Amino acid sequence: AKPKQVTYGNRGMTLEEDINETNLYYLAQGKAVIHKKPTPVQIVDVLYPSRSAAVIKEAYFKQPSTTDYNGVFKGRYIDFEAKETKNSTSFPLKNFHEHQITHMEDVYKHDGITFVLLRFSATEEVFLLPFPSLHAYWKRMLDGGRKSITKEEIERDGTRIRLGLHPRVDYLKIVQELYF
Amino acid sequence: AKPKQVTYGNRGMTLEEDINETNLYYLAQGKAVIHKKPTPVQIVDVLYPSRSAAVIKEAYFKQPSTTDYNGVFKGRYIDFEAKETKNSTSFPLKNFHEHQITHMEDVYKHDGITFVLLRFSATEEVFLLPFPSLHAYWKRMLDGGRKSITKEEIERDGTRIRLGLHPRVDYLKIVQELYF
Ligand SMILES: [Mg+2]
Ligand SMILES: [Mg+2]
Repeated sequence: AKPKQVTYGNRGMTLEEDINETNLYYLAQGKAVIHKKPTPVQIVDVLYPSRSAAVIKEAYFKQPSTTDYNGVFKGRYIDFEAKETKNSTSFPLKNFHEHQITHMEDVYKHDGITFVLLRFSATEEVFLLPFPSLHAYWKRMLDGGRKSITKEEIERDGTRIRLGLHPRVDYLKIVQELYF
Repeated sequence: AKPKQVTYGNRGMTLEEDINETNLYYLAQGKAVIHKKPTPVQIVDVLYPSRSAAVIKEAYFKQPSTTDYNGVFKGRYIDFEAKETKNSTSFPLKNFHEHQITHMEDVYKHDGITFVLLRFSATEEVFLLPFPSLHAYWKRMLDGGRKSITKEEIERDGTRIRLGLHPRVDYLKIVQELYF
């Protein structure tokens, strides 16, 4: 009998959900301590009802000044951002904010490990692209060049992450190969 | 003429404000990249008015699952919590949540640099106490012992941080001495 094909495709999970699951796995396995930062919110009005929890009645989303994920792996500082696109031939740079690039540049200068995880959602491919490559394409855009990174460039400069069931996106395997 | 005495006392700044200023100084000076994490909020209801920013209409404060501050210093991962007390002879351990202790324990196991900054607000003294000491006193409490760390214990096991104007709380000076 033909074995049932294992497919991880079209599970309807976002990259963020996959990474959160992966980080929980890493924590439980004692591999690393990496957390997603809370969404930054500007709180304007809070109600303190007696006998119950404080309720935030008015607040606004703030632009994050850093990346979403950071933590420690074998004593080293890890810092990354995760983004997905529905495009299939290139990754738009408008997905990044300038202060995120600046933050990653700072981390890079301080010898932290910093990169982006890029997912092409149509094909569910995930790549780890080290910050220096991202930075080079960002500068190309600032110099008047294209506003995206082609898939070929990502395949050449980045590393594809094999998807699994548990953990779903084993990015530390690639970090181990590239940075240690 | 008697020189005007420089005093940093009673400036009415919270420890958090002092640390945020210090972290901005470190970033500007290229010393380290350390940020406070946003306050975690559970968002329940969001209004999306046309032509203006989304308004969060109902949200609740969540218990943080990690410490408040983390980042990178000379490639190493730094992770700490800052607390103050109005007590003058001891520091109450109820200021810490169990999951913060667990998080610091995880970071410690992964060879990250983790500690607490403790301020006695009456005297404006700030101490850096490495995690293993905090952990020992936490376990003493769990074993039925006292629910606080005495000031003498903090003076013995921790390191006093000299306060300044800029940066206000130069904790990385102590980190450099203790961990490098
Ligand atoms: Mg993000
Ligand atoms: Mg706190």
